[in-house]
Amino acid sequence: MIDFSGTYTDQYQLTMGQVYFKKGEAEEAAVFDYFFRKLPFKGGFAVFAGLETLLDVLEDFRFSEEDLNFLKTQNFDAEYLQYLKEFRFRGKIYSVKEGDLVFPGAPVVRVEANIIEAQIVETILLNLLNFQTLIATKATRMYIQAKGRKLIDFGLRRAQGLGGYHASRAAMIGGFEGTSNTRAGRDFGFQVSGTMAHSFIQSYEDELQAFRDFAESHPKNTILLVDTYNTLKSGIPNAITVGKEMESRGQKLKGIRLDSGDLAYLARRSRKMLDDAGLDYVKISASNQLDEHLIKSLLDQEAPIDIFGIGTSLVTGKPDAALDGVYKLSFFRDKPRIKLSETIAKVTLPHKKQVYRLLDHEGNFLGADVVCLHGEENPEMMFHPYDPLKFRKVADVPKEQLLQPVLENGKRINEKRSIQEISAFSKERLAKLPTEFKRFFNPHLYKVGISRDLRDERDRLIDEHKKEYL
Amino acid sequence: MIDFSGTYTDQYQLTMGQVYFKKGEAEEAAVFDYFFRKLPFKGGFAVFAGLETLLDVLEDFRFSEEDLNFLKTQNFDAEYLQYLKEFRFRGKIYSVKEGDLVFPGAPVVRVEANIIEAQIVETILLNLLNFQTLIATKATRMYIQAKGRKLIDFGLRRAQGLGGYHASRAAMIGGFEGTSNTRAGRDFGFQVSGTMAHSFIQSYEDELQAFRDFAESHPKNTILLVDTYNTLKSGIPNAITVGKEMESRGQKLKGIRLDSGDLAYLARRSRKMLDDAGLDYVKISASNQLDEHLIKSLLDQEAPIDIFGIGTSLVTGKPDAALDGVYKLSFFRDKPRIKLSETIAKVTLPHKKQVYRLLDHEGNFLGADVVCLHGEENPEMMFHPYDPLKFRKVADVPKEQLLQPVLENGKRINEKRSIQEISAFSKERLAKLPTEFKRFFNPHLYKVGISRDLRDERDRLIDEHKKEYL
Repeated sequence: MIDFSGTYTDQYQLTMGQVYFKKGEAEEAAVFDYFFRKLPFKGGFAVFAGLETLLDVLEDFRFSEEDLNFLKTQNFDAEYLQYLKEFRFRGKIYSVKEGDLVFPGAPVVRVEANIIEAQIVETILLNLLNFQTLIATKATRMYIQAKGRKLIDFGLRRAQGLGGYHASRAAMIGGFEGTSNTRAGRDFGFQVSGTMAHSFIQSYEDELQAFRDFAESHPKNTILLVDTYNTLKSGIPNAITVGKEMESRGQKLKGIRLDSGDLAYLARRSRKMLDDAGLDYVKISASNQLDEHLIKSLLDQEAPIDIFGIGTSLVTGKPDAALDGVYKLSFFRDKPRIKLSETIAKVTLPHKKQVYRLLDHEGNFLGADVVCLHGEENPEMMFHPYDPLKFRKVADVPKEQLLQPVLENGKRINEKRSIQEISAFSKERLAKLPTEFKRFFNPHLYKVGISRDLRDERDRLIDEHKKEYL
Repeated sequence: MIDFSGTYTDQYQLTMGQVYFKKGEAEEAAVFDYFFRKLPFKGGFAVFAGLETLLDVLEDFRFSEEDLNFLKTQNFDAEYLQYLKEFRFRGKIYSVKEGDLVFPGAPVVRVEANIIEAQIVETILLNLLNFQTLIATKATRMYIQAKGRKLIDFGLRRAQGLGGYHASRAAMIGGFEGTSNTRAGRDFGFQVSGTMAHSFIQSYEDELQAFRDFAESHPKNTILLVDTYNTLKSGIPNAITVGKEMESRGQKLKGIRLDSGDLAYLARRSRKMLDDAGLDYVKISASNQLDEHLIKSLLDQEAPIDIFGIGTSLVTGKPDAALDGVYKLSFFRDKPRIKLSETIAKVTLPHKKQVYRLLDHEGNFLGADVVCLHGEENPEMMFHPYDPLKFRKVADVPKEQLLQPVLENGKRINEKRSIQEISAFSKERLAKLPTEFKRFFNPHLYKVGISRDLRDERDRLIDEHKKEYL
């Protein structure tokens, strides 16, 4: 059993916290930004996910008895441990809406809290948001390629341990319609599917009897796995027999599943055999190491597949494995903060910030977000973050504010959104993104610029720090 | 909060279970094998991990009230749900010892249970063993390259959500000495480390004061992060100042940490500066996107790094993301079972089986395992699983049995082993593996053969099935 109590963190959050505590600075206000630097999967967008999970955790975050007993063994001061005993997250959070499209370099979440609170929740924030955003993005890539065919998550057995739980959640946000993961279905309220494995067929002397028994036990949900022995000589003929028997009982065979071999060829041959037998309503589902590239390839070949079952590549976000999201201090003790780096691209943006998305006159996305200071009502210019030759006037371009308050004094401001709501919202946003950003190969580059005031503030702080080493 | 109650499974396990239940076959005995087909990371071995976690889960496996309420909404029969309410795992499990080296094609775990029990636990078994084995293998690859330097897991923030929990456990089995993950430290009893982030330095007007405050608060555990502004011009000089101040108080600066830039160059320059200041006892730790390839490269360059902090690539098993472990029926209703496939390499091995490891006369590994029928005392010959030209006499070769009973009637037979014990055992086994199998590039191929009796049985069953389609 694992929960999200206080020790679900990197220990340095707690050691730093002790320093602040002992200096009497536990209540000093800090601002941190969550953002990422690189789009996964060589794609043109990312789908932000994990926010509601994070808010659930933060509303209830505390150190358990077990946590505190362990920390006693770790050389922490007794007074500080007493402080942790009473610890709650009472900060304020601004965030992009879960399910929205997000892009490198623009803050996705802004945390305003006392420095100890803001640090202690860093690890769990990164852990939850990085992973779910990775998987929701992967799922959306599959959703785009599947062009309306149904997608089902089959990944739990190959997921990274308990990571499979939130992988299924993120898959739904990305456009999957169901999962094999019963637990995720139970907790997140979406459709769970599951029929039979090869072992079920093997457990019988013959395939036909296995199909018959299954159809009898689950007449409303019969999807027959047809490739255990020989798809076209045995599996499909037996499925047709059972389909006809079901018809005579006033029932309907729901589908067949292909799980090996040349899926395009087998789907086409199976479709013809089913149709010739009058079973044109029987769906064909396919699985076996699929990803968005194979979905595209199968549909380019016009394979008559209605349902794709996807496992490993979905739930592990293959081949990227992790989103590179980071959490950086931007304001503390009434002063803006930056982190320098050897490359200007990695210097962080100081101050409390807001993000505007540029729109066209129909409300679709123009292809650029502008990061500005919190409080800038309508940034007039947008500058490339570090290429001085690139800028654009944006005063008259319609915009929308992306960062909205979601948590205040540690409590949600709005009601918790359901997965269905978040998923539907994500599809709305995806529809507003011009098609060239959704292209499979070499998608168009979505721009993230900064306002004049933000640029000037950043450059002023760089100069201040540079002087120290001249 | 997530636990391992009954719905932590793929739904098809439950739908198949209902068919068996309704046919009155709930108590029919089945045997399943867990094995994998491909070594991860182009390596020469895998390190088996996750067993004690699995046994914990199985000893306590049941359907909660919440599970049963959800399943009521899923069209299951009331009588079957009543059966699930009383469901316990009461089977027997044979397993390779956790921490041992394992190879493709040989059973790692054998589950003997009634068919419903054996199916319902399939998903969780695969989920836990596939992931921990992947990560323990990755960690061991790093352990080999680190040649005695200390390895610390920094991965939680980039882990696949809750997967980070068992990733840290598996890292320890592979040879890591510590983790930043406080929760994993609490629950698995290993060393947790954590000092400071860049944000801590940024939160001060100057770096020196940040270092001083930290040293004062954590005099026994001061590792200073030196790259926030400028490693050689600011970070190291300030660390030396604080190190000297600590000396004057009778304390010792423990280390410095490099987290960006050219780690080999910076480590060498930092070492010289520290040594020149009389701080030769101060350790150098390095982090920033490290993996086994970079550890090797840094040590090939003789970079004076004492401690490596490793994140993403460790906890996500980059670039492989998943071990391809499977769980296949081999015996049911008193008959051996196989699963056919279009390629002989994927045809499964029937019957209850045992695995013998071949040894040389010093007790080191010869480089081959033989899979045979359970009960074969001393297989005389070893055959390549499908190349008839490859075989070898092994009657006189010393052997050891790898599959040993670990669970009976759903209860552990032996005491639970600690991570420290498992990790030490794993190192013993690694020492017995000849060096050519541990080579970084193109390691020697460890052989997995089958006994004559097993081969004959498999071929007989293939013939039986083939006849049906002639």
